[in-house]
Amino acid sequence: MTIKDVAEYSGVSVSTVSRVLNNRPDVSGAVRSRVMDAVHTLHYVPNNSARDLVKRPQNDAIGVVVRGAENPFFTPVIRAVEHSAECAGYSMVLHQIKAGEDELLAGAALVRSKRLAGLILLGGCYDYSPEEVAPLEVPFVCCTYTNRFGSLNRGEYSSVSIDDQAEAYRAVRCLTRRGHRRIAVLLDSVEDHSISQLRYRGYRQALEEAGLPLDMSLVAETVDFDMAAAYRRTRALLESGTEFTAVFAIADSMAIAAMKALHDAGRQVPEDCSVIAIDGIEMSQYTVPTLTTLIQPQEALGAQAVEILVNILENHGECRHLRVETALRPGGTVADCP
Amino acid sequence: MTIKDVAEYSGVSVSTVSRVLNNRPDVSGAVRSRVMDAVHTLHYVPNNSARDLVKRPQNDAIGVVVRGAENPFFTPVIRAVEHSAECAGYSMVLHQIKAGEDELLAGAALVRSKRLAGLILLGGCYDYSPEEVAPLEVPFVCCTYTNRFGSLNRGEYSSVSIDDQAEAYRAVRCLTRRGHRRIAVLLDSVEDHSISQLRYRGYRQALEEAGLPLDMSLVAETVDFDMAAAYRRTRALLESGTEFTAVFAIADSMAIAAMKALHDAGRQVPEDCSVIAIDGIEMSQYTVPTLTTLIQPQEALGAQAVEILVNILENHGECRHLRVETALRPGGTVADCP
Repeated sequence: MTIKDVAEYSGVSVSTVSRVLNNRPDVSGAVRSRVMDAVHTLHYVPNNSARDLVKRPQNDAIGVVVRGAENPFFTPVIRAVEHSAECAGYSMVLHQIKAGEDELLAGAALVRSKRLAGLILLGGCYDYSPEEVAPLEVPFVCCTYTNRFGSLNRGEYSSVSIDDQAEAYRAVRCLTRRGHRRIAVLLDSVEDHSISQLRYRGYRQALEEAGLPLDMSLVAETVDFDMAAAYRRTRALLESGTEFTAVFAIADSMAIAAMKALHDAGRQVPEDCSVIAIDGIEMSQYTVPTLTTLIQPQEALGAQAVEILVNILENHGECRHLRVETALRPGGTVADCP
Repeated sequence: MTIKDVAEYSGVSVSTVSRVLNNRPDVSGAVRSRVMDAVHTLHYVPNNSARDLVKRPQNDAIGVVVRGAENPFFTPVIRAVEHSAECAGYSMVLHQIKAGEDELLAGAALVRSKRLAGLILLGGCYDYSPEEVAPLEVPFVCCTYTNRFGSLNRGEYSSVSIDDQAEAYRAVRCLTRRGHRRIAVLLDSVEDHSISQLRYRGYRQALEEAGLPLDMSLVAETVDFDMAAAYRRTRALLESGTEFTAVFAIADSMAIAAMKALHDAGRQVPEDCSVIAIDGIEMSQYTVPTLTTLIQPQEALGAQAVEILVNILENHGECRHLRVETALRPGGTVADCP
């Protein structure tokens, strides 16, 4: 008779049984009595020195470092992380940094000061080296991104994200299939070693497949990843006289700013110009017309990151790399090429 | 020669000098050497038992409980709180709860588990009793709201917010002055003992001043404080056949959802219907047309909350109740009554 049998019988996790047996306060009364019923029914004798007692980290806190917290995309992800962490018996310590700050430095400081068991990085760099992540000292999960441009061994970290290149390809293909041949792309930078670069690859792949040449005058880099920069860059593109009938924005917030810029320049969406993006933030449902976008499963991203991390912390689970899929919301911003 | 002289000479706060003298790690090298220069120049001899050493709370963490974290309005406020707390030598422990959850219970649990020095409540209830807040046990600041409907003594807590009634009055007056006589109000509930009720008072005050009768068929309660509910409620109002030429939404996010509902029902903003709100979230700059709204000083709200709290913690400062003003952004959603 092991603690696992008790967990199975009572329909809760091993760590919950452990918490009940250790009289920890963070278990509801209902769960506590269900577990104790199982203990009695199965005649389970807890043995505090026994191997089957789960070795939990001393501190039950998971740190979350959010880089670019002004991005509304992260809000539901953070909520899902907190909820999942709580369900697994962990508290969440949140630290927000600006888009330009160093999430590894911030994460390492947080791990030390709060003696964290593990870390979830939300919106960081895609090019870590083993030396750079060494100061973290605890298991970590890259949430919403991967280490695609870095030199980390896949067994050294975990990640949960969409396949940026494949989803960008899918978005741009929605435009080429409607006959668009002059498609602008709105992104941070084509060589940012990050989300922009990967989605830019998907853009190029879709152009190539459609037999369209790459025209650098259609590649609009914003440099700053914020709405004001996206607005200004779209205005500049329009004023440059470069012709285009569609825009692929790598993020909903950029697409919303681009739609405003198109409107202010007298262009109708989608009659004069189609717009498509990736993300699915709440606000994109309320643009006029509704933004056509590929919706990331925000809750699943957060929940899966916690699941992977907790499995590593409690069960010596392996590092995992999970790719989740988006769902196309048709919206009203994509039309046939005029 | 006191620690205050050193602080003044080196241009940093007393608490920063104290941290340098106590060899605390959370001070930058530049600040450290500036302070030590001052110590040497002024021949200041730190005396660890001296009265002038600041008595800092054992734990240097400030808790922030955010109720309704999905509200993008809070993002810049939270960032300002974290930045100000950091500058004052405190770390921030953030806890997000849903709009319907109890921020006092959550706050009390956070204070105990993290041994917090103080608490900032973001987006809570307006009707606390002394018994309800007693479990918090630490000084706290209501940020973005007040205890207007509660029985707390003003000396028992602090608050930083706009004057909800006065600002709502100001918003609705923008509509009555343009000749609107049928003005709908979009709010959570007229008797929520909270933000809705206060802003509803301002709405009524403006109607009364303009000699307009209160028509309950124009009072649209959403019950849920989210965009989907605001959208549905506006659609229902339109479908009810009630005539109106303007909408006052008590929040930008509700106004954006209302604009979408008006559009979907074939009404032009502002030609057929004007819209005005209060908040000033980033997204409201990018609606078409740009939302006319009263912008809350989000950064000041967060920074002032920290300043009041730190002053209480470090200098036995008094509880304060600060009212900050909004700034009207004209936008393009208000026109003369057709």
